[in-house]
Amino acid sequence: MLRQVSDQLQIATSGPGLTRLSGPINGAIGRSGLQQGLCVALAQHTSCSLTINENADPRVLADLEAYLHDLVPRERRYAHDDEGPDDMPAHIRTALTTTSLSVPFADGQLRLGTWQEVYLWEHRDAPHLRQIALHLIGT
Amino acid sequence: MLRQVSDQLQIATSGPGLTRLSGPINGAIGRSGLQQGLCVALAQHTSCSLTINENADPRVLADLEAYLHDLVPRERRYAHDDEGPDDMPAHIRTALTTTSLSVPFADGQLRLGTWQEVYLWEHRDAPHLRQIALHLIGT
Amino acid sequence: MLRQVSDQLQIATSGPGLTRLSGPINGAIGRSGLQQGLCVALAQHTSCSLTINENADPRVLADLEAYLHDLVPRERRYAHDDEGPDDMPAHIRTALTTTSLSVPFADGQLRLGTWQEVYLWEHRDAPHLRQIALHLIGT
Repeated sequence: MLRQVSDQLQIATSGPGLTRLSGPINGAIGRSGLQQGLCVALAQHTSCSLTINENADPRVLADLEAYLHDLVPRERRYAHDDEGPDDMPAHIRTALTTTSLSVPFADGQLRLGTWQEVYLWEHRDAPHLRQIALHLIGT
Repeated sequence: MLRQVSDQLQIATSGPGLTRLSGPINGAIGRSGLQQGLCVALAQHTSCSLTINENADPRVLADLEAYLHDLVPRERRYAHDDEGPDDMPAHIRTALTTTSLSVPFADGQLRLGTWQEVYLWEHRDAPHLRQIALHLIGT
Repeated sequence: MLRQVSDQLQIATSGPGLTRLSGPINGAIGRSGLQQGLCVALAQHTSCSLTINENADPRVLADLEAYLHDLVPRERRYAHDDEGPDDMPAHIRTALTTTSLSVPFADGQLRLGTWQEVYLWEHRDAPHLRQIALHLIGT
């Protein structure tokens, strides 16, 4: 019979860029005792996001970060400018990427492709402790 | 035992920009009688989208709208141009943001962060009545 | 009583652009025997993505592809450049769109709007055989 489990991750980031999440999420699946089902992750913030991208070459992550940095310029005139020059760009970067992800799992592991990793993408300059809400449904 | 509930929201928009959705979605969770589970929302259109962003300062919403307006210029030459200059940009803006969102809930409320709100993002110039399909699974 | 079904689609693409997925996904719902529920689709790659957009005018799809091609230029200097000039742009295009989609279904069909179609968006130049993980929960 299907059942559900709620969980929560706390992930430390170290400024702009991508932090691996597949391991911590697979850990939560392990704690749940579920083998097959659906995992939903929600970054509970408006200046970081979730994404799935390449797991092998760290230069891909550097290129992703550099591209997004240029796409959302700090030099633009923002009305919301009182929390620092990286704040409003961080909100926009969040809107252009994704706050929630849904990934099936089987055999107690996310059903990711060979080259895929789930990442938390920090968009602020300062290190942050980020909260990820997890919800698992399965057997 | 887990059960599911389907629901539907109709949301009136007033041209380009963001309309709050967390209240109406929490209302649907209340109607369902479910306390803990997963909520999926789907905007059933191709010229508006769903996003989660900052709930406190309206200037953030103005900056988001202004940025996306500039990122997807109306002056660009589009092949699909017979539904008005705001139409093809609206399809592109939809593709760059998100049509479906999955958010866990607990105690009958979305498990959002302190500063988060779910928004419907209207990308057309004219006011529209938008349909949001909801699906809830939980207990 | 709710139950879950895992499935897998293999979709052939023919270079950059959008391939219809609603039919194959509705086929998987049919195979599952489920009538009402939630469908999650995950593209198990880092150089293609999923999106929901207009189903009627093929010029919309041409405009979407042309816009994204220009937004993520091949001429940019990328650190990860050893898999061809279309490779790092494909990873960025994936990050700007969506790898997983959640869509409710009823009467054995996705609850899409009148003008909506689920698409697989190929971001590489070469044709590929793409894997889509599906997970269905419902009755």
